[in-house]
Amino acid sequence: MGQHVYLFGDGKADGTAQMRELLGGKGANLAEMARLGIPVPPGFTVTTEVCRYYHGHGGRYPAGLEEEVRAGIAHLEALTGRRFGDRRNPLLVSVRSGAPASMPGMMDTILNLGLTDAAVEGLAAQTSSRFARDAYRRLLAMYGSVVLGVKDEGEAGVDPFDAAMEELKAERGVDSDLDLTADDLAELIARYKALIARAGKVFPQDPWEQLWGAIGAVMRSWNNERAREYRRLNRIPDTLGTGVNVQAMVFGNLSANSGTGVMFTRDPATGENRLYGEYLLNAQGEDVVAGIRTPQPIAKAAKSDPSQVSLEEAMPKVYQELLRIRDRLERHYRDMQDIEFTIEEGKLYILQTRSGKRTGFAAVRIAVEMAEEGLITEDEAILRINPAEQLAQLLQPIFDPTEKANVKVIGKGLPAGPGAASGRMALTADRVVKLAEGGDPVVLVRHETSPDDIKGMAVAQGILTARGGLTSHAAVVARQIGKVAVVGCEALHIDYKAGQVTVGGKTIKEGDWISIDGTTGEVMAGKIPTVPSEVIQVLIERTLPPEKAPIYQLYAKLMAWADQRRRLGVRANADKPDQAAVALAFGAEGIGLCRTEHMFFGEGRIPYVQQAIVGTNPQEREQALRHLGAMQAEDFEGILRVMDGKPVIIRLLDPPMHEFLPQEEKDILALAKRFGVDPAELRARIESLHEFNPMLGHRGCRLGITHPDLYDMQVEAIFRAAAKLVREGLHPKPQVMVPLVGHVNEMRAVRERVDRIAREVMDEERIEIDYKVGTMVEVPRAALTADEIAEAAEFFSFGTNDLTQMTFGYSRDDAGKFIREYLERKILPEDPFETIDRAGVGELMKIAVEKGRSARPDISLGICGEHGGESHSVHFCHEIGLDYVSASPFRVPIARLAAAQAALAR
Amino acid sequence: MGQHVYLFGDGKADGTAQMRELLGGKGANLAEMARLGIPVPPGFTVTTEVCRYYHGHGGRYPAGLEEEVRAGIAHLEALTGRRFGDRRNPLLVSVRSGAPASMPGMMDTILNLGLTDAAVEGLAAQTSSRFARDAYRRLLAMYGSVVLGVKDEGEAGVDPFDAAMEELKAERGVDSDLDLTADDLAELIARYKALIARAGKVFPQDPWEQLWGAIGAVMRSWNNERAREYRRLNRIPDTLGTGVNVQAMVFGNLSANSGTGVMFTRDPATGENRLYGEYLLNAQGEDVVAGIRTPQPIAKAAKSDPSQVSLEEAMPKVYQELLRIRDRLERHYRDMQDIEFTIEEGKLYILQTRSGKRTGFAAVRIAVEMAEEGLITEDEAILRINPAEQLAQLLQPIFDPTEKANVKVIGKGLPAGPGAASGRMALTADRVVKLAEGGDPVVLVRHETSPDDIKGMAVAQGILTARGGLTSHAAVVARQIGKVAVVGCEALHIDYKAGQVTVGGKTIKEGDWISIDGTTGEVMAGKIPTVPSEVIQVLIERTLPPEKAPIYQLYAKLMAWADQRRRLGVRANADKPDQAAVALAFGAEGIGLCRTEHMFFGEGRIPYVQQAIVGTNPQEREQALRHLGAMQAEDFEGILRVMDGKPVIIRLLDPPMHEFLPQEEKDILALAKRFGVDPAELRARIESLHEFNPMLGHRGCRLGITHPDLYDMQVEAIFRAAAKLVREGLHPKPQVMVPLVGHVNEMRAVRERVDRIAREVMDEERIEIDYKVGTMVEVPRAALTADEIAEAAEFFSFGTNDLTQMTFGYSRDDAGKFIREYLERKILPEDPFETIDRAGVGELMKIAVEKGRSARPDISLGICGEHGGESHSVHFCHEIGLDYVSASPFRVPIARLAAAQAALAR
Repeated sequence: MGQHVYLFGDGKADGTAQMRELLGGKGANLAEMARLGIPVPPGFTVTTEVCRYYHGHGGRYPAGLEEEVRAGIAHLEALTGRRFGDRRNPLLVSVRSGAPASMPGMMDTILNLGLTDAAVEGLAAQTSSRFARDAYRRLLAMYGSVVLGVKDEGEAGVDPFDAAMEELKAERGVDSDLDLTADDLAELIARYKALIARAGKVFPQDPWEQLWGAIGAVMRSWNNERAREYRRLNRIPDTLGTGVNVQAMVFGNLSANSGTGVMFTRDPATGENRLYGEYLLNAQGEDVVAGIRTPQPIAKAAKSDPSQVSLEEAMPKVYQELLRIRDRLERHYRDMQDIEFTIEEGKLYILQTRSGKRTGFAAVRIAVEMAEEGLITEDEAILRINPAEQLAQLLQPIFDPTEKANVKVIGKGLPAGPGAASGRMALTADRVVKLAEGGDPVVLVRHETSPDDIKGMAVAQGILTARGGLTSHAAVVARQIGKVAVVGCEALHIDYKAGQVTVGGKTIKEGDWISIDGTTGEVMAGKIPTVPSEVIQVLIERTLPPEKAPIYQLYAKLMAWADQRRRLGVRANADKPDQAAVALAFGAEGIGLCRTEHMFFGEGRIPYVQQAIVGTNPQEREQALRHLGAMQAEDFEGILRVMDGKPVIIRLLDPPMHEFLPQEEKDILALAKRFGVDPAELRARIESLHEFNPMLGHRGCRLGITHPDLYDMQVEAIFRAAAKLVREGLHPKPQVMVPLVGHVNEMRAVRERVDRIAREVMDEERIEIDYKVGTMVEVPRAALTADEIAEAAEFFSFGTNDLTQMTFGYSRDDAGKFIREYLERKILPEDPFETIDRAGVGELMKIAVEKGRSARPDISLGICGEHGGESHSVHFCHEIGLDYVSASPFRVPIARLAAAQAALAR
Repeated sequence: MGQHVYLFGDGKADGTAQMRELLGGKGANLAEMARLGIPVPPGFTVTTEVCRYYHGHGGRYPAGLEEEVRAGIAHLEALTGRRFGDRRNPLLVSVRSGAPASMPGMMDTILNLGLTDAAVEGLAAQTSSRFARDAYRRLLAMYGSVVLGVKDEGEAGVDPFDAAMEELKAERGVDSDLDLTADDLAELIARYKALIARAGKVFPQDPWEQLWGAIGAVMRSWNNERAREYRRLNRIPDTLGTGVNVQAMVFGNLSANSGTGVMFTRDPATGENRLYGEYLLNAQGEDVVAGIRTPQPIAKAAKSDPSQVSLEEAMPKVYQELLRIRDRLERHYRDMQDIEFTIEEGKLYILQTRSGKRTGFAAVRIAVEMAEEGLITEDEAILRINPAEQLAQLLQPIFDPTEKANVKVIGKGLPAGPGAASGRMALTADRVVKLAEGGDPVVLVRHETSPDDIKGMAVAQGILTARGGLTSHAAVVARQIGKVAVVGCEALHIDYKAGQVTVGGKTIKEGDWISIDGTTGEVMAGKIPTVPSEVIQVLIERTLPPEKAPIYQLYAKLMAWADQRRRLGVRANADKPDQAAVALAFGAEGIGLCRTEHMFFGEGRIPYVQQAIVGTNPQEREQALRHLGAMQAEDFEGILRVMDGKPVIIRLLDPPMHEFLPQEEKDILALAKRFGVDPAELRARIESLHEFNPMLGHRGCRLGITHPDLYDMQVEAIFRAAAKLVREGLHPKPQVMVPLVGHVNEMRAVRERVDRIAREVMDEERIEIDYKVGTMVEVPRAALTADEIAEAAEFFSFGTNDLTQMTFGYSRDDAGKFIREYLERKILPEDPFETIDRAGVGELMKIAVEKGRSARPDISLGICGEHGGESHSVHFCHEIGLDYVSASPFRVPIARLAAAQAALAR
């Protein structure tokens, strides 16, 4: 280990912005700003290496640190002319965390450190008694809770120092702490000390002891619970550690000529290129964040009310300097900056600069405009947008923000389908359909959804479930059909019988309005108006001309840049013509997965499906199959027509037969009556189809091989539909996909029938159809023997949902029980159903790509699992050389952007 | 393609014994015998290549074949002085199949070919009217059914030609066809012709047309149903094809000075080194095989009854020549031979020689004795024994002699397949299959068996026939597939219609129990308990001194030779001390898998297990765990004591918790009452444990990680048990195995606890224990990331049962529904749960071996799935470099032999 402490101040610094890993973001930027001549209070940074050492050595510090910290304090003393611990002219410092990755508010901070019973008098002499005592009571409270760990004894969650403050304010009959006098604060200091003493702790009167206590506390806060959770959610490695920044205090609360504020170099909500920020006079930074007083705008133009006083008006010179600094920092960092500043007696200090968090809208606008300004390249603009979190926002309808602010959140679940939905509540799919007939939007609320609910889900505006995770049936279907969804809202109590739901103490009846925000997971009672996104209005609804849609224009520019750069093709998973049309509008270059079984659940079809499965009369069975065939031919015609000239991969029937049959006694009786069969016989037949592990059972091509008539019907329907279009002069490109192939002989057996039926139809219709036959790669054995299978398959599509289930041995339906715990305990670094597991599932994919191409160099390789629309997985697909990804229609733009980013990544 | 037809005869031949692939076994050996100067009737062989061409080209023959066949017939004419189709001196030929792999009786044969209405008169003039007409009626019947496909119209399963014969015999009031006169045979010929005409067919009067018809029929018979089934059972590739052997006829039925027989160079039942065989005077070969007349012994010493006439007595010169040929052929082929011969007017002809099928007893004895005689090497002796089918017979139980002494022997036949079988009686193959579904063993009883019965014979425990000798179909097949068999029990009266059998005055109905002793030939009514084999009595029960156990002696010699040669270690899967003791006696070098959950189901333990799982009172739960821990420590102590000094791999709890809980309402109520909990609560808890796909659910280390107290209890029990033994001066070697690991972090998490508990116990007891911690490799991801996992695991044990389930995506509980069909349709070449699937599962194993060793060069690698005791899989384990296989105790000898064979295989 080298240097442990990096100094900055007075236009010089040991560190630079590039040293983020070592110094943390805050420390590196403070050093950089010092070098740029930006006025930052002098200070020093203890490196993240020290933090790692500390955690790796049972809370001990590396040799030499103490000397370096002493030298750092001496450096501050030299630059400020004050002395640490001095009675008359004490040097006060702040001690702040600062990790390589931004973790705002997750770790601890101590301000005004260096004050003691003696020093507070000196500070009082220099400033005022009230100011000095206020600073001291703040130090006591922060140090008491953060370093000494003084916790509340009574009511849970209430900080005892806050409680003591509230008590005193009540005794004095004042509302604001600003109304407490210097004497009141002396009393508060006494009470704070008593609180600390009661907890068996001692507040150190030695400033060095204070300093080491604070440094240790900040380092320990790297591992507090909320920091760990934040890192897990944001995929930040636990191994980084935090830097500790010790800086000379400057006081925004010293006088009316002082203040503190936050400034964004562009609007973080809209991205507009204007200074955006707020400040408070006579206040410390924490006051702005805590929202105790309402801040004022910085720019005069931003005033929303004439009574406000902008900084531009109050301190024109400081404002001008801020403008210069804004320009300087944005140009220097080449990104929108989030800047904290303090004004002490009219002098401006910058305390922090960092890339500003922004909405998706702002992210796109800033990136595109900065590229057009020449500040960044188009490549950089593309790389700056998070596809799933930022770009996706441009596509979602949103609640009218002002309306939503007035409504109480009564429950919270997992945000599974972004966007906003308000509708009348329905507890069954049938009820959705009935309620929708009234013309109002409907929100379907269920414990969990099943394939039986698809019809209702398709009609509903939004879906809310009490159970299930982000890969539950409800979540997967919602994303695919572009529905707003909140899943796993465990506070939800559903009483199907009474037709009502209780949540957060509120009871909602069927037909009442309910609102869910699929971007935040929030559930609200009542109706909240929404607006569709501008991109949707232009591309899908065609209700808005592009030239009147500035956000669409930004989107279109970004997408055009992305398309120029990506190598991966992007297709969509769509089962119906309308879904395909949406996908096309979003730029899909084909259909990567059309699930034929979803069509089976269509209006009025299930009886024919059931007859085909359990019918005993061969003629009736055949007739049912003919019926289904005719309907499927229409389905296929529709989707092939929409996607004319583009490949459409149609997967043959995949689920086990029992999914199409009733399980309830009364439904079995009804079915038996309809088919005129013995109920006991029908029940026995249904029971014989029961499986212990349906996931590993008789489905996919296993069914197609043992019961070939269903597949034959589907295949004929595909080619009849294509033939009709060919005769119309169109160019359909159907590609038949065989599910669940694990052995080349399965592929051969099905393919032989497909080719034969295709030939028969083409001969009969006297035309040729441009078709292919390929397979899903979703069984590990298919990947391992991809060379053999490629001999018989013209394309592979990785079905990574099932491949993940089988490679891990996790049933998606059951694994929720332990996966959550595995993620919390870091047994799994991430949920493999969300992001492709590179080491295991990814390894199988690599093997399949290599073997598949070795046997058939021109084989087409893609992915149609949920991962196809997830950025990290798209990167992986690019890396291993797939030809395309296929995502649900609303994820097509995400996939296009992610594919471009993958191509740009080194 | 080169030469299509290979000639032999007169001490010369185109082919050799090495040309088995091209000429088939029969053709190659006929050529070889001709070269050796053994008297074989001259002939020629059409190659298997022609058969393959025929099937690949829609039944056409390759160019040039016709000329070569004509030349072949000319060769026969030259050597015999007869002419094909001649009226006065006709050349008659046999047309027989002969595949590279032995498929006895599976394909078709035509004899006496070349006879026509005209030629039969010429033959009559040379021999007798009766003989000529008998030959002609045989040709008509064979040709009619085999080539022309004339089938019965009435009663199923009865050959119409047989029926016509029976009818005529009844009309004439005779019992045997030998009693039919020449005139009767003329009448029969007329009736046969009428039968053929009624079927719309014509028997060709052109011998060339007959010949081509017969050649085509033999080639087509390669693909008949029973041949395909036989190949499937015996893993013979469908692509081989059969040769066709056309040979000059010789007649064993020409006179009383003629005959036919079958000879084994050693006893095929016991392996004893003596000529063994049967013959019939004045008969054709098919009469011996069909078992219509019971044959006489060849050697005088083999007479079981003074009324018999041995060949040694009847034709001493021929007998002497047979002895010379026996010696010549066995020394030449260096294996026990099965020789068919015919005597025509006192002249001996050899029609076929091949390696003789033999029982497991005979196989071991012959191999060991030939090695001791110096005829073969010890390596060859080892390679000659099929471990699963032959060696395993030495371990099969025999009837309990005291029990058997109380049972009356009601019939006696020839001991054709040693061993003891008690089972429910079935009179048809279909009935065997149906009865076997009930779970009880089944004994098939038939007049005689035919290839159509193979499926039933494969399922049956034992086979009993009323007719036929030791070389009959039933005897040959039974020996080959290792079934207990008694044949030729003439006292047996079978009434197929009534579904019953009468023997020795006792009537037994289908479904009743019957017992047969294949070592003595005895038949008994009812069920008789069995006792262990000689090897078991010596090794396990120690009730028989080795010196009094000749079969054990052979076994021990063979095993000693095998152990000198194998590289693979052999361990056993055993859960209890008594099982471990058996394994040890069979030569196990350790325990490869001790399943702790089996112990959980032990007497009186389940309540504690249930309490530990669903108990709500923490103290009671802990107490239950302590109880279980104490009991498990005893379990482990027992098994570690038995296996002292040898590794014992103990797998931590694997099944999901719901397996230990009741599902029935009344059991739930009882449990709730016992624990004093609310039944509704308990029911809810049990329901919450329900899984859609338990195979892929919350079990194995997933449970160990989320509920660590069960694993902690088991681990402590292991080390407490080991510590006790160490203090006694023993050397226990416990190896803790973590199940279902898919991610290295799972391994790390469990291992950390194991190591900690081990340390605590060792410190507390002040001893050191030689232990290891490793994992099952049963999840595909574990194999794919074996390098990571090996960092934390000291050994891998391939759990190929689960690995196969997940790699194929087959649930063993459900896959029966389609796997059977897949095997029948050759979608799967073999059942992957029986034999390791090399291309898929095997590929994963190879990856794991390579990656595991790369990360930890001294890692110990083994297998503990069912495959560990299956020969083909043991070969594979040897090839990929595993360190050991682990098999169930009774399969340990099989694994030892298979491991030696693998080491000897090039």
